[in-house]
Amino acid sequence: MKHLLSTQDLSHADALRILDTAEEMATVSGREVKKLPALRGRTVVNLFLEDSTRTRISFEAAAKRLSADVINFSGKGTSVSKGESLKDTVQTLEAIGADAIVMRHWASGAAAQLADSGWIRSAVVNAGDGTHEHPTQALLDAFTLRRHLALRHGTAPHGTDLAGMKVVIVGDILHSRVARSNLWLLTTLGAEVTLAAPPTLVPVGVGDWPCTVTYSLDEALAGAPDAVMMLRVQSERMHDAFFPSAAEYTRSWGLTDERLGMLEASGVEDAVIMHPGPMNRGLEISAAAADSTRNTALEQVANGVSIRMAVLYLLLSASDSPDPSTPTAPSDRKATA
Amino acid sequence: MKHLLSTQDLSHADALRILDTAEEMATVSGREVKKLPALRGRTVVNLFLEDSTRTRISFEAAAKRLSADVINFSGKGTSVSKGESLKDTVQTLEAIGADAIVMRHWASGAAAQLADSGWIRSAVVNAGDGTHEHPTQALLDAFTLRRHLALRHGTAPHGTDLAGMKVVIVGDILHSRVARSNLWLLTTLGAEVTLAAPPTLVPVGVGDWPCTVTYSLDEALAGAPDAVMMLRVQSERMHDAFFPSAAEYTRSWGLTDERLGMLEASGVEDAVIMHPGPMNRGLEISAAAADSTRNTALEQVANGVSIRMAVLYLLLSASDSPDPSTPTAPSDRKATA
Amino acid sequence: MKHLLSTQDLSHADALRILDTAEEMATVSGREVKKLPALRGRTVVNLFLEDSTRTRISFEAAAKRLSADVINFSGKGTSVSKGESLKDTVQTLEAIGADAIVMRHWASGAAAQLADSGWIRSAVVNAGDGTHEHPTQALLDAFTLRRHLALRHGTAPHGTDLAGMKVVIVGDILHSRVARSNLWLLTTLGAEVTLAAPPTLVPVGVGDWPCTVTYSLDEALAGAPDAVMMLRVQSERMHDAFFPSAAEYTRSWGLTDERLGMLEASGVEDAVIMHPGPMNRGLEISAAAADSTRNTALEQVANGVSIRMAVLYLLLSASDSPDPSTPTAPSDRKATA
Repeated sequence: MKHLLSTQDLSHADALRILDTAEEMATVSGREVKKLPALRGRTVVNLFLEDSTRTRISFEAAAKRLSADVINFSGKGTSVSKGESLKDTVQTLEAIGADAIVMRHWASGAAAQLADSGWIRSAVVNAGDGTHEHPTQALLDAFTLRRHLALRHGTAPHGTDLAGMKVVIVGDILHSRVARSNLWLLTTLGAEVTLAAPPTLVPVGVGDWPCTVTYSLDEALAGAPDAVMMLRVQSERMHDAFFPSAAEYTRSWGLTDERLGMLEASGVEDAVIMHPGPMNRGLEISAAAADSTRNTALEQVANGVSIRMAVLYLLLSASDSPDPSTPTAPSDRKATA
Repeated sequence: MKHLLSTQDLSHADALRILDTAEEMATVSGREVKKLPALRGRTVVNLFLEDSTRTRISFEAAAKRLSADVINFSGKGTSVSKGESLKDTVQTLEAIGADAIVMRHWASGAAAQLADSGWIRSAVVNAGDGTHEHPTQALLDAFTLRRHLALRHGTAPHGTDLAGMKVVIVGDILHSRVARSNLWLLTTLGAEVTLAAPPTLVPVGVGDWPCTVTYSLDEALAGAPDAVMMLRVQSERMHDAFFPSAAEYTRSWGLTDERLGMLEASGVEDAVIMHPGPMNRGLEISAAAADSTRNTALEQVANGVSIRMAVLYLLLSASDSPDPSTPTAPSDRKATA
Repeated sequence: MKHLLSTQDLSHADALRILDTAEEMATVSGREVKKLPALRGRTVVNLFLEDSTRTRISFEAAAKRLSADVINFSGKGTSVSKGESLKDTVQTLEAIGADAIVMRHWASGAAAQLADSGWIRSAVVNAGDGTHEHPTQALLDAFTLRRHLALRHGTAPHGTDLAGMKVVIVGDILHSRVARSNLWLLTTLGAEVTLAAPPTLVPVGVGDWPCTVTYSLDEALAGAPDAVMMLRVQSERMHDAFFPSAAEYTRSWGLTDERLGMLEASGVEDAVIMHPGPMNRGLEISAAAADSTRNTALEQVANGVSIRMAVLYLLLSASDSPDPSTPTAPSDRKATA
């Protein structure tokens, strides 16, 4: 692996490799000293052109536990806000010493464009690009599910996938990179995915996706899922989706106390609730569901650090660093004009 | 000690323990290499929901000298500004790996509420909560005073308190968490406290506090204090306090050149001026008083790093880290609904 | 060297010492582990009262590679924005533990004023002051040129200067600290400097500077320069300079495709284009010139880290740290009032 851009292109073998490496990283959390020297002297740049403190500090914590140096670069007040091109920005960051660029970008496809551009030799990690993908979120979700499955079977999670698990993803599928990344990765790992959403929040091309679609959350819950993954709702999109109010959304699509009861009665004793955070208590999830021991939201956050450690480790421990400070010999020169 | 929330609840023994530990930490400043490995692998999160760069970087410097990793999380542009509850924010920070949460919050009582909530197992350090308390500021002030007292007696500061010292706190007592934290700690350590303030800036319940109140700064200075602690004035509050102008405030309550002269003539040869900073030169303190060698403002700042090292060390070196990434066994599950 | 304030006052010997030290630092970039322990336990504060992410993260990367702790302090939301004086700010930063203060300030002369003030004992590094100087930019430019010259001669760069090189600096000389710092340093190192600019963007006192001035870029290019240094144009200044439009500026003063051809035909086979970044593609530099292998912009950025490592190393490895936490003995006291 040179980059981590999406889960759609991630093979079953690479996905397992990341999950298994993350299990190794997670053992570090149990130790007295949580730091590993693996990436000492390497520099990870968090290039966040869209705000996301939670994801940014998770990558920051992961890099620091591997002893890497971290430089945070956000869009505001930077050369980007002065109109610098993405090409010049990332080449500058590499010249300053970046070995990996973790990028959050507002445009779908930005990470892949960067990786394919030939502009830089650094590893690129997609930390969310528009409505396209958020692969480390899907990996941490799969890691969390795999641990629960292993617990159910009393086995170790290493080397196993999610064959046979039934996962329902609920809410604004249309705008969600989390939903897309999960769909592809869960399918690759053998799980069955059902998308539960109002028709106005389902993308047009969903017929080509490897999943079932339902327009009733109650129906989805009746199907005895192993996991119900609630997406965060952005209230400003309620109007676009023809909901007269947030309360109306909650009535049909929220994990209310009643639906929590349905899940508990659905037949899967250890069925879990997942949420990428931050949760809108009272909107897509009731306080009781948010605080339920079935809710894995905090496990997901903790596992996110292990997954990001694994990704950074796998991408960087093998790479060799370019040295852009060396001038080119005159004979190698050729103007591109 | 599990948390540091206030000085009102701090025992004489615990206060001395922090001050004595800070003396040990201060010796590190004199060394070639100022870092101690004590908190290597631990993570300190600065959760600052109100701006305060000075306090934030003092905690940051303290944590780094103990080799801890530091993650800064401010309110702006974060999940908090998207409406996330404090509960979800702090649980997320703990799941990412926080061993201690240093919190500045606009609401009085926020730190205690967090510590009592059971939401997290991390240590909580109150870095200022509304108009309630700012305990590390009081501890660094006491540390500074204790060093001066030891210098006067030609003894070592270790193990001693402030018995018999006379301290005047001057200015906007009503809105000042610094005044409250100092009042309690100074009293616990045996000092006599006088509050000098205009009637409009004294809280209603002051009659129950262990101190004397005077409405004349000149009278307070005439009482031969060992220390005069000037509070920072926020000019937007001058109007609330019925002062027609800042100049009018200075005339009655500023440490002017004349009053500096009174202090020098008051009988205590080594009387000091204290200020938590940043100073409003020309408002609550004249330039001459600000630049006087009696002014301990910079010693206070330097001592602040030692105090915060001591607090983080005492809270974290004994604690065990929770591992929120471990899923709960199905048999332990019980929905809270 | 106690501070780095300007290149105008930098001796030939000190300049070579920095360049040679930077060559040593640059070798670290080629290693597996890029960190040196040289400044472990030292604290570098980036005091940026004007936005400049590129320069700030370059200093940050340099300090971290030397194992120093870095604290970033910008003007917004800090005590400075509350009206604190520069004196109180820097004394506070020193009291918190700063061994070096890297300052970007909007006022010309601010760095020298700080160094001369006697307010602090920390090393001061000028990271840009108004339109006055930006010495590390000039040093990294000279470093880049010296490497190219050595490559031409097939020799090592160590110990050599830029004697005989012809450098053209193009654009808004009037407002450019980069131009000023380069003029002085290049001249000290033996290069011949030509300033090429419209009359409205040349300072009044230019007649006293050790350089040639031309009002035609084409004429300057015809002179067979070894390097053409393009300054960044701030479009809001086009109007001040009596240019009706940015396109009009580009026509006369941009490094267009035609002028790139002139440079290539000018007789110096390995002539280079330099730019401090961020580049305005299509304004002062065409896309072809920006992407040409002659363009050293990225080498400059990479070399910037080596230069800043050298400067921090030379200033800090010899210095002794003050300890402002020690109270003054009463007998040493004397109010300055």
